[in-house]
Amino acid sequence: MSNQQVHHKRLLVMTEGLLGPFSAKTAASVIRYRRRDVVAVLDSTAVGQSLGDHFGFADDLPIVGSVADAARLEPDGLLVGIAPVGGQLPEPMRRHAIDAIEAGLDIISGLHVMLADDEELSAAAKTRGVRIWDVRDPGAFDQIAFARARQARARRVLTVGSDCAVGKMVCALEMRQAALDAGRDATFVATGQTGIMIEGWGVSVDRVIADFAAGAAEWLIEQVKDHELVFIEGQGSITHPGYSGVTLALLHGTCPDVMVMCIRPGRTHHHEMPDCPIPPLPQQIALYESITQSLHPAKVAAVSVNTFGMSDEKARAELDRVREQTGLPATDPIRYGAMVLLDAVV
Amino acid sequence: MSNQQVHHKRLLVMTEGLLGPFSAKTAASVIRYRRRDVVAVLDSTAVGQSLGDHFGFADDLPIVGSVADAARLEPDGLLVGIAPVGGQLPEPMRRHAIDAIEAGLDIISGLHVMLADDEELSAAAKTRGVRIWDVRDPGAFDQIAFARARQARARRVLTVGSDCAVGKMVCALEMRQAALDAGRDATFVATGQTGIMIEGWGVSVDRVIADFAAGAAEWLIEQVKDHELVFIEGQGSITHPGYSGVTLALLHGTCPDVMVMCIRPGRTHHHEMPDCPIPPLPQQIALYESITQSLHPAKVAAVSVNTFGMSDEKARAELDRVREQTGLPATDPIRYGAMVLLDAVV
Repeated sequence: MSNQQVHHKRLLVMTEGLLGPFSAKTAASVIRYRRRDVVAVLDSTAVGQSLGDHFGFADDLPIVGSVADAARLEPDGLLVGIAPVGGQLPEPMRRHAIDAIEAGLDIISGLHVMLADDEELSAAAKTRGVRIWDVRDPGAFDQIAFARARQARARRVLTVGSDCAVGKMVCALEMRQAALDAGRDATFVATGQTGIMIEGWGVSVDRVIADFAAGAAEWLIEQVKDHELVFIEGQGSITHPGYSGVTLALLHGTCPDVMVMCIRPGRTHHHEMPDCPIPPLPQQIALYESITQSLHPAKVAAVSVNTFGMSDEKARAELDRVREQTGLPATDPIRYGAMVLLDAVV
Repeated sequence: MSNQQVHHKRLLVMTEGLLGPFSAKTAASVIRYRRRDVVAVLDSTAVGQSLGDHFGFADDLPIVGSVADAARLEPDGLLVGIAPVGGQLPEPMRRHAIDAIEAGLDIISGLHVMLADDEELSAAAKTRGVRIWDVRDPGAFDQIAFARARQARARRVLTVGSDCAVGKMVCALEMRQAALDAGRDATFVATGQTGIMIEGWGVSVDRVIADFAAGAAEWLIEQVKDHELVFIEGQGSITHPGYSGVTLALLHGTCPDVMVMCIRPGRTHHHEMPDCPIPPLPQQIALYESITQSLHPAKVAAVSVNTFGMSDEKARAELDRVREQTGLPATDPIRYGAMVLLDAVV
């Protein structure tokens, strides 16, 4: 079983040439949720610029042009926070990575290509005694699930979605933070690359061999079973033509006690699948609930609505519409806080 | 994309020390469904015995004690038809495999361990110019599914199940044979190791990386899209705690036009999972149907009932009970033929 837990405390987040709210989405998420563990952004094309102008937050975080320029900040890891087209490591990033390894930093990467398999980088890492952590690599899981997650003491809250890329990770993180702020013993279970980078551990469940994906989810719950509250990052959607298998593996592997449905209003079809309509919200909620019935019945207790880019008036109207349509509490945890969701699931 | 199609016509089926209806289940299935492509069984511990005594059929097939003894039958492949405890290749089987390679036979294996990665065997195969085909190895699938199976001309019939090991492969094979007997243009899509050995091609979908399992199923449909009828081997069960993700990936990856529900009467809990009850049949059928709704609505049109080991009276009573419970046609395709099922799905 894989058990990658690496808790860096002084990260250098590399965006080299790709700084921006969308192109560097992973970097933005890591900085938003691990602000205290990040010492600087590394981007030689953005030195002198302000992070606030790109992300709308973290204006106080310096942007440096080289690993050497970050030395005085004593970083302990270089996090490759972007996903360049093609999935490979571009040459300028490779040079920074070599510099980082030589300076004794671990490398944390969410790229499709496994940097640990890169001859130049792995040889350098071995020589210097640092670690290359490819967070997408789930390791060799080979256990099937037996619905043992039901035996965990922890109350398990799973975010499920109408589609991929609607805000399931953010919803789980915001609920966890709200629970911690309320003095509860709460933790977060990361099931995808950005979540793993934020939390410092987890398993990219969608990269596990299909037979063992639910087993990997079950293993994740085993690691957090003694917490009071566990907020699990969902993946995909039960009606997504490509990812539904991963969604269901997570559902049966974690056996949630309660679910929070995450939606993005206005999206009528699955992401980049113009021929695949998303069913009406009540129908999708019923589907999630019915598929939990035989193993461990769970209800959708609230709806998390991603109102990014809407006016406040429009956002409030959307929330009212969702409440009326479902009879459930609804909010946007980024815009209005996650207390409404937390109250619904505890 | 993987495209392993190897159509051996003179197979030597190895059961070495494990001949029996359960211990050599894979061999029995291959012999049952590929009788014309098998020249002998290889088992030095069973020479002089009758296959009929073990399997109840194929009494005319010789049992040989060595590869040399099979030479006059001119075999073209050695099929490792059993799954020994531990998943490794036992020493006596290894010696037969080396003999077979040296005699110019390909090796076809369904073991968990990949024989192509075995140094001794792969070196010998390379020298002799023969092929080692590990049917569990799905190759490097890396495409997600887009529900493109809907565009295939073929009518797609998927067998779905109340549980694993209830007869989904056999049901699909029997319907295919009934369709061929009726003069239809029908084919079979293998999604597991035994099915692949029987059909000579296919993909072990449960061994694909979870994100691409539905994509592998979609690729399988692409290969058979111009047939009139396609009978697809289902996997697992939508309520199985370990395998449901694979089940759903197959469902959304193949977008069936119609489904046949396969059950084993008397089984109340999922295979080897005493804490995981199987829901009532009508509830499970409703679940399968509801999860197809948004992408490509499909109904369960008939129930295939595995009455192995029952008296004829008990079997008929079970079929009556299932018909009453579901309002659907029901039969055991092995005991009573698959015409009832075929009529229900075409």
